[in-house]
Amino acid sequence: MSQSPAPVRRYSYLGPAGTFTEAALKQVPEAAGQDWNPVDNLGAALEEVVSGRSHAAMIAIENSIDGGVTVAQDALATIPGLRIVGEYLVPVSFVLVARPGTRLEDVTVVSGHPVAYGQCRTWLDAHTTQHRHLIASSNVQSAADLFDPEKGIDAAIAPPGIDEHYDVDVLADGLAENPDAVTRFVLVSRIVPVSEPSGADKTSLIVELPEDRSGALLDLLEQFATRGVNLTLLTSRPIGDRMGRYRFVIDAEGHVKDARVADALLGVKRFSPNVVFLGSYPRADRVVATTRAAHDDDAFRDARDWLRGIISGEDA
Amino acid sequence: MSQSPAPVRRYSYLGPAGTFTEAALKQVPEAAGQDWNPVDNLGAALEEVVSGRSHAAMIAIENSIDGGVTVAQDALATIPGLRIVGEYLVPVSFVLVARPGTRLEDVTVVSGHPVAYGQCRTWLDAHTTQHRHLIASSNVQSAADLFDPEKGIDAAIAPPGIDEHYDVDVLADGLAENPDAVTRFVLVSRIVPVSEPSGADKTSLIVELPEDRSGALLDLLEQFATRGVNLTLLTSRPIGDRMGRYRFVIDAEGHVKDARVADALLGVKRFSPNVVFLGSYPRADRVVATTRAAHDDDAFRDARDWLRGIISGEDA
Amino acid sequence: MSQSPAPVRRYSYLGPAGTFTEAALKQVPEAAGQDWNPVDNLGAALEEVVSGRSHAAMIAIENSIDGGVTVAQDALATIPGLRIVGEYLVPVSFVLVARPGTRLEDVTVVSGHPVAYGQCRTWLDAHTTQHRHLIASSNVQSAADLFDPEKGIDAAIAPPGIDEHYDVDVLADGLAENPDAVTRFVLVSRIVPVSEPSGADKTSLIVELPEDRSGALLDLLEQFATRGVNLTLLTSRPIGDRMGRYRFVIDAEGHVKDARVADALLGVKRFSPNVVFLGSYPRADRVVATTRAAHDDDAFRDARDWLRGIISGEDA
Amino acid sequence: MSQSPAPVRRYSYLGPAGTFTEAALKQVPEAAGQDWNPVDNLGAALEEVVSGRSHAAMIAIENSIDGGVTVAQDALATIPGLRIVGEYLVPVSFVLVARPGTRLEDVTVVSGHPVAYGQCRTWLDAHTTQHRHLIASSNVQSAADLFDPEKGIDAAIAPPGIDEHYDVDVLADGLAENPDAVTRFVLVSRIVPVSEPSGADKTSLIVELPEDRSGALLDLLEQFATRGVNLTLLTSRPIGDRMGRYRFVIDAEGHVKDARVADALLGVKRFSPNVVFLGSYPRADRVVATTRAAHDDDAFRDARDWLRGIISGEDA
Repeated sequence: MSQSPAPVRRYSYLGPAGTFTEAALKQVPEAAGQDWNPVDNLGAALEEVVSGRSHAAMIAIENSIDGGVTVAQDALATIPGLRIVGEYLVPVSFVLVARPGTRLEDVTVVSGHPVAYGQCRTWLDAHTTQHRHLIASSNVQSAADLFDPEKGIDAAIAPPGIDEHYDVDVLADGLAENPDAVTRFVLVSRIVPVSEPSGADKTSLIVELPEDRSGALLDLLEQFATRGVNLTLLTSRPIGDRMGRYRFVIDAEGHVKDARVADALLGVKRFSPNVVFLGSYPRADRVVATTRAAHDDDAFRDARDWLRGIISGEDA
Repeated sequence: MSQSPAPVRRYSYLGPAGTFTEAALKQVPEAAGQDWNPVDNLGAALEEVVSGRSHAAMIAIENSIDGGVTVAQDALATIPGLRIVGEYLVPVSFVLVARPGTRLEDVTVVSGHPVAYGQCRTWLDAHTTQHRHLIASSNVQSAADLFDPEKGIDAAIAPPGIDEHYDVDVLADGLAENPDAVTRFVLVSRIVPVSEPSGADKTSLIVELPEDRSGALLDLLEQFATRGVNLTLLTSRPIGDRMGRYRFVIDAEGHVKDARVADALLGVKRFSPNVVFLGSYPRADRVVATTRAAHDDDAFRDARDWLRGIISGEDA
Repeated sequence: MSQSPAPVRRYSYLGPAGTFTEAALKQVPEAAGQDWNPVDNLGAALEEVVSGRSHAAMIAIENSIDGGVTVAQDALATIPGLRIVGEYLVPVSFVLVARPGTRLEDVTVVSGHPVAYGQCRTWLDAHTTQHRHLIASSNVQSAADLFDPEKGIDAAIAPPGIDEHYDVDVLADGLAENPDAVTRFVLVSRIVPVSEPSGADKTSLIVELPEDRSGALLDLLEQFATRGVNLTLLTSRPIGDRMGRYRFVIDAEGHVKDARVADALLGVKRFSPNVVFLGSYPRADRVVATTRAAHDDDAFRDARDWLRGIISGEDA
Repeated sequence: MSQSPAPVRRYSYLGPAGTFTEAALKQVPEAAGQDWNPVDNLGAALEEVVSGRSHAAMIAIENSIDGGVTVAQDALATIPGLRIVGEYLVPVSFVLVARPGTRLEDVTVVSGHPVAYGQCRTWLDAHTTQHRHLIASSNVQSAADLFDPEKGIDAAIAPPGIDEHYDVDVLADGLAENPDAVTRFVLVSRIVPVSEPSGADKTSLIVELPEDRSGALLDLLEQFATRGVNLTLLTSRPIGDRMGRYRFVIDAEGHVKDARVADALLGVKRFSPNVVFLGSYPRADRVVATTRAAHDDDAFRDARDWLRGIISGEDA
């Protein structure tokens, strides 16, 4: 979706136009007027970044209802050369759309992405006499499928604004069970120098545990706790070689250029047989971490000065 | 699949016959000859148990490649009245099947469950000149879809043994990338008294953290560590009310009738605003937990005797 | 020092009359009018209790300036059959006394118990032109020594009230450097049933660490922390068999009949190769421990009820 | 005690000649032939160092039977400008000496330093029909007191070799109860640059805990544990301002120039409102700390290199 005469950077995203991913990309000021490239799956989006064809890719990483997007977590854990450079939140809400002239009481076959359907099912049960669900491959494809006669679809679950892209009527809005549902997206680029802290940042890591000790997860968490670094996310994903081996997906408050985060990462690096730094970037929610004075940059600098003094004997 | 003249108990499972879930159910000795009821989704399987129509349901809970089956984890966390009573492992391997007479070099459209397709994609890329993937709703439905002319499918990814249920030729076997891939299933019943320890057991829990304190996850893990209880699984799932709130899915070594596990659970219960006990049951891998003497039942009994003595003054 | 016609119980204390230890014993209501037996060292005081000749002994256990009375800590760690049943605080202040007629400017040789001398030395340096210190065996003996001509003493450091026992003039008071100095005493009996909690209690323990693991002290402290039990004292004493082996002297907030303390003690007992319970008794300072709801007796009872329910299946 | 024509450095120690402290000083190669200055108490020894009159002072810091020498611990905690530069162990054994001609069966009054007497009392009870103890101010003064007729002493507890300094007969040797008893001494200088690691070192600290948090001691210990630094000593001493406030005396394995120790000290410095570095010096027992690879200097350097790479983006 080229939007300017001379775009210099391409951004990949899960298309087509109208998806929540596109809504996330619209939040990126520096993407305005650049070359937006819709792709049809996560692998394609990241491949464009790795190969250098795209400057960055916007990908969904977590949903407040469905949890982590595991395929994205696994891709970031295993594809080298990527770096998260931004985080964006998009409220998740759905409308029910149909071909013009359709009435709600006529709806019996509903198209929808499985995740969307899960969030709208209670509404559909309450507002249709009976309905059957057909799986769609994206939240926009569901609407497109309305125009495929072979599918026999009466209505589709789609994002608000879908009627700007397709000739559909909105039969109802606010279908999702939880009105606060939100999806978290991250903008992923190739590895670049880490940007300066914004004051409200997150740092993302993938960490494997050493195998030869019990209590290793506890030891990992202590690396953060002793430096006063809080975690906003800790979850596990299989390494894949055999049942019971996991890597941990971690989001920590703060930026790698904050002394306490850098020190925690050094501790994690020494501890872990395999740690992947995914990036430090401004938090979408702009929440500033609360930190004791003992963990701020001044405390780290003072301690280093003190250590230098005791070693040199200049503290005499 | 009724197998005896007078079955007394119904078992639900994700059907149809031929799925890995059915293979898991075949591992349950007491299910032999009973009434096996294939259903088409997890919700239906658990609903049959909750309503009392089924004695138990076999459900997939984790795959060594794809990780936790989140819909199953969330169902166990939120549907009251359920209890895990057994655990089973089924090796995951796939065959490529087609209508009789089809040759591998003719295959261009492949049907497969998305998870299965992910595990077989490398093989397909290497052995077909070009192929397109059509999503199937189960590992058996993919084969059934071969006989739906509208779908235009040439071949299907399906479990070994599928040719006993459908008139298909096996074009190739061993498609999955990781030959050690395995899926973990649990047998879920209504709440019943906990069975006796087998000596090699697991205990499953869902735990929410108190909100008013940092380091809460560390404190939760300490409840297990101070009692010498190792965890085989720790992952998180969104509670769903807002981004950033999680419940933790935990599998611990040992049985709730092991004193150290009971003590750890008491600690967790006091600590957590919401803890769901999912069950203590024999481990599928029959691995016996290694425990220090300080954490065995004798140590717990000796300590209680000691405490009684010091309170009564009888240790004089 | 028999104070009533028919005393039924003997109390031993470090005499003679006038010592701080006697002042501590005066704080014990049930000791009033009983048989008070001054002895000249700690070993004698405890021996009277062990042998049954005394009902209890008052002994100094800690001074806010000098720290633990190590000989008392070691005695409690190694002499079986003893139990702390009460705790008392006595402010430490000193007067300088001399034979009648002596003037401060004449004082050159000062008698004093070494601990007392240490606390008064700054004052003496400031108020005497020059002085020499002679060691006395107790805070009262120092005054008695004034009347031993061979010792050549001009003045003595002694407790306030010493002039009720000896014919001395008080040359100055308030000698001790720290006006808030206080000595902590404990009343020690033979082993008896533990009394009921007062609501503001302490529990004293002696604990050895297992030798086969690093981080054992951390693990010991976790036993208290996971139950929300704070420590008011942790110090170490040599076991004595070789350099580098220690036992830990611990005072914990709360009473062994408080569920959280009992549970912590069970954990310590399982963990430690040798733990000595010294007693639960009302705190001298009457400070009530602040406890989270998660650690109160109700939380423990609720958790046990919950555990019973999940095991029996009655929580269905 | 000048021992060479041109001594350049003075060493202070608790005299007189013949004490265990002198035996410790004899273990210091660079002290040979220098000016050895016996003083009569710890304060005088340290004062000579602080004032610059002595190059260093040898002081007893711990006994395997009696524990820490608290006056020395407190002096090191509160007198600024001192640094421990060496550690020495002296076996503690005692002989019973008397004026020539005295027989063991005639001994009824025994002179001895209280600590020495405590260690020899069992022997004396067994080998004398009855005896009385007179306190001596040092292990050598006890022998000197034999020649003070006013004291009426028959025998003295003294260190082996005392007969080189005094005209006495050795009535018996091996009096001490524990044949493995040992005293630990430290050589204390003014603050100087820290020497290079010997490969088997100790680091001594005095640490106060922050007041505003429970679990602070646990947090302090975690600072060492997360860096893999073991402690050989942890004990507490009163700060002295009020009952219940302590500073912690800590000996850690390793040298401040070992990366893991430096990192632990940085953590302790940030955490503690008051930390005193007392020195890094070769261990008397020459025991080399066992360290995981994750905690060695290479691991620290590799982690720093990694961190630099991820910040700069050069790990692309």
